[in-house]
Amino acid sequence: MAEGSGLERPGLDGAAGEEFLGQALRLLLDEAVRNGTDRARKVCEWREPRELRALLDLELRPHGEPPQRLLQRCRDVARYSVKTGHPRFFNQLFSGLDHHALAGRLLTEALNTSQYTYEIAPVFVLMEEVVLAKLRELVGWGSGDGIFCPGGSLSNMYAMNVARFQRFPEGRQRGSRALPRLALFASQESHYSIEKGAAFLGIGTDNVFFVRADERGKMIPEELEKEIERAKSEGAVPFFVSATCGTTVLGAFDPLQSVADVCQRHGLWLHVDAAWGGSALLSRTHRHLLAGIERADSVAWNPHKMLAVGLQCSALLLRDTSGLLQRCHGAGASYLFQRDKFYDVAYDTGDKTLQCGRRVDCLKLWLLWKAVGTEGLERRVDRAFACTRYLVEEVKRRDGFQLVLEPEFINLCFWFVPPSLRGREGCDDFWERLGKVAPAIKERMMREGSMMVSYQPHGARVNFFRQIATSPAVTRADLDFFLDEIERLGHDL
Amino acid sequence: MAEGSGLERPGLDGAAGEEFLGQALRLLLDEAVRNGTDRARKVCEWREPRELRALLDLELRPHGEPPQRLLQRCRDVARYSVKTGHPRFFNQLFSGLDHHALAGRLLTEALNTSQYTYEIAPVFVLMEEVVLAKLRELVGWGSGDGIFCPGGSLSNMYAMNVARFQRFPEGRQRGSRALPRLALFASQESHYSIEKGAAFLGIGTDNVFFVRADERGKMIPEELEKEIERAKSEGAVPFFVSATCGTTVLGAFDPLQSVADVCQRHGLWLHVDAAWGGSALLSRTHRHLLAGIERADSVAWNPHKMLAVGLQCSALLLRDTSGLLQRCHGAGASYLFQRDKFYDVAYDTGDKTLQCGRRVDCLKLWLLWKAVGTEGLERRVDRAFACTRYLVEEVKRRDGFQLVLEPEFINLCFWFVPPSLRGREGCDDFWERLGKVAPAIKERMMREGSMMVSYQPHGARVNFFRQIATSPAVTRADLDFFLDEIERLGHDL
Repeated sequence: MAEGSGLERPGLDGAAGEEFLGQALRLLLDEAVRNGTDRARKVCEWREPRELRALLDLELRPHGEPPQRLLQRCRDVARYSVKTGHPRFFNQLFSGLDHHALAGRLLTEALNTSQYTYEIAPVFVLMEEVVLAKLRELVGWGSGDGIFCPGGSLSNMYAMNVARFQRFPEGRQRGSRALPRLALFASQESHYSIEKGAAFLGIGTDNVFFVRADERGKMIPEELEKEIERAKSEGAVPFFVSATCGTTVLGAFDPLQSVADVCQRHGLWLHVDAAWGGSALLSRTHRHLLAGIERADSVAWNPHKMLAVGLQCSALLLRDTSGLLQRCHGAGASYLFQRDKFYDVAYDTGDKTLQCGRRVDCLKLWLLWKAVGTEGLERRVDRAFACTRYLVEEVKRRDGFQLVLEPEFINLCFWFVPPSLRGREGCDDFWERLGKVAPAIKERMMREGSMMVSYQPHGARVNFFRQIATSPAVTRADLDFFLDEIERLGHDL
Repeated sequence: MAEGSGLERPGLDGAAGEEFLGQALRLLLDEAVRNGTDRARKVCEWREPRELRALLDLELRPHGEPPQRLLQRCRDVARYSVKTGHPRFFNQLFSGLDHHALAGRLLTEALNTSQYTYEIAPVFVLMEEVVLAKLRELVGWGSGDGIFCPGGSLSNMYAMNVARFQRFPEGRQRGSRALPRLALFASQESHYSIEKGAAFLGIGTDNVFFVRADERGKMIPEELEKEIERAKSEGAVPFFVSATCGTTVLGAFDPLQSVADVCQRHGLWLHVDAAWGGSALLSRTHRHLLAGIERADSVAWNPHKMLAVGLQCSALLLRDTSGLLQRCHGAGASYLFQRDKFYDVAYDTGDKTLQCGRRVDCLKLWLLWKAVGTEGLERRVDRAFACTRYLVEEVKRRDGFQLVLEPEFINLCFWFVPPSLRGREGCDDFWERLGKVAPAIKERMMREGSMMVSYQPHGARVNFFRQIATSPAVTRADLDFFLDEIERLGHDL
């Protein structure tokens, strides 16, 4: 064909596209937002994989489909997806649906840009800096650096890499082989991304020294000291300690002041993995849990968890003001970070990241913050604590519920002992039988779709439930329902 | 306060939230979708950082703001953001707005789940597998493995890590120090993520052997052979070759068959970074550019670029069927990947990733594919090639335009020589002066907001424009406008 023939008209029908999009948005509002948060409806509509595959007709074919069929597909996608915004979804560290944050997320998608340069993301370059500065202020830093990362795992790994670079800048060029054997430290309750990171960064999982935690899940500073000595005696060079604020299962906070003392004594980089617990900094009542966090060198904090901002929103914050992050990760690609631009290229912040294209993760948090203010966020954090306190009292009051431990945060960990096992606590098979209760209740729960809550074994402890209520939509009635439903589903086990 | 007081009522006003969201969605449709793609409107409304900061009032305060003010803020965010969906946005490897893909992205946000287990993402676990299988089929593999990653850089790094693990599984535990000095290879035109990855993974940038490319930007296989020998002679162990399909600036494709021959001869992992060029596999006319890709061990492919799916959608595909990805990255966290679940836990695929929480990136591509079919996607790819061919002919026809090279892909690289410099090609200062033309035109373009196109220097070549048209909305008139506008903006330079 002649060059340009076929290009007279657009390759897509914009008017039809807008019509479809408008209908899809109405469906989104009806199904995902309204019905998805409606207590009269299910949290999930369970189907076995084989059955669901058949229902969805996922196959991709040569020809396209008409709009009404596509809309039906969208409806099915929504129908069979788990309603994480439902007030009875207690399964994950993220939950709830905030309309302002969601508006920010939808607008982010529609604007579809990448957070690398001021040229391509002027609003978001400035906005990210303001949001990061605000988070740093809550940590207790008047200055510093930071970046949003695709999730807390990567935030932790960035911290690990920056710490390595700060200590051994030559490693960037020469690799880990040119460095001494490095050792890093985290409690045995730390998130698995520390181990994944050690593997990925070429440090090796053997060089993660897991520090013993007490029975509440908190790192024991004396044990940290011992592990550091042990690493040194093995000829390794300690360089990085990751303290956890809000462990995944128990919700434990490591004692930051004591850990910071140890780090200071040994000249180690202190990273705080506050992916989960960081949002407690917003509460004047509860921020004491993180006392000492201002002594950290880096902090990972995921507002997408407790603040219901939506996946993903994970900040890596640094105390450094020397441009370490840029020097550690920067590559200065000439096709993005031209030095002869007509504006101040200090605003082209995207080279601080390991990524090239990077999603905009600041708008959703910024818009929520503008909507409710710092005090509104504080109320939500306090409310989540109040939900947990209420449940703790109820669990103590009700027969058959047994706390795994008194929560210091908002992870409610408990066993449900069904009537058939009550009074048999001394029997040989008690724990073995109890360990089968949570999975059995969970199966019934999923099949009914009435609510969702997670369970897991933990160390020597057999399967127990871990309940989390971060959604501001949760009321006392939902919490009562939660306990009633556990009783109902488990009464005959 | 008594436990539970204050929990009688929800902590957010759902009805007001829905009302706000509905208004925000209308604004999104008007501003970001309709106006954002309207040729009568600007691609960007340039403001200096200082001025924009004042206009946006970004500061976060103790108190929240009323809905109308928030909506005005959303309007401002849209107004001052770059319209990447505009048919005259030619600046990035991603552009354009597809209404179906956008519907998929918005629904993804509203459903807000994480792609780790079947329990929490039943629809998306199945959907991701179908989409990845389809992409693998286009690569030429009837089986294999894969995962969506947060961007092509990380996809490349995953490949590097999996290759290292396959060759030296002990490195995961023992770290790079326990391994020989590793060497990896990529052309000097390869994406900077290869170097960033070598640094991050502890391999070291010194151990990236950059292979010479020919004048069109294609790796020279004989040079690869030489670099491998050089690495060996230095005592390093070659393990990984990254061939590029679609380099960032020139759009070059490495000769995969010859590169694969070299890899086969030396027993090296062949990774193909087809982040940019992979979508050409959809075109029966143009897929020959990637001939031999089926011989790769891994492929990175970003449908968010050429297919206008929206940031981010980056697939890492593997030929491996032995579960290498899971063994390499898996940590088996007991609180997510319980083995005693009531369904087949083979569907809990999230442990293959380095991340913990992982966004759903499959729905947008799946919905677009369902809407237009494989043939519709093929037409879009062919159309992008046709746009470039049309421009090539026009550039050759018009005075003052000079191709940097005849494109094999859809990167149109050219200089604009303003009238004042024409006929002065032999003068000493010609290239120096020409190098200042593109930045000057770009500044005027941005200040007027009429369109956007990228420029960069490249090796010994002074600044030239790199134009990309992937949006199916682009017509011949837009392409004519593009060239006319360059002439208009640069005529007096």
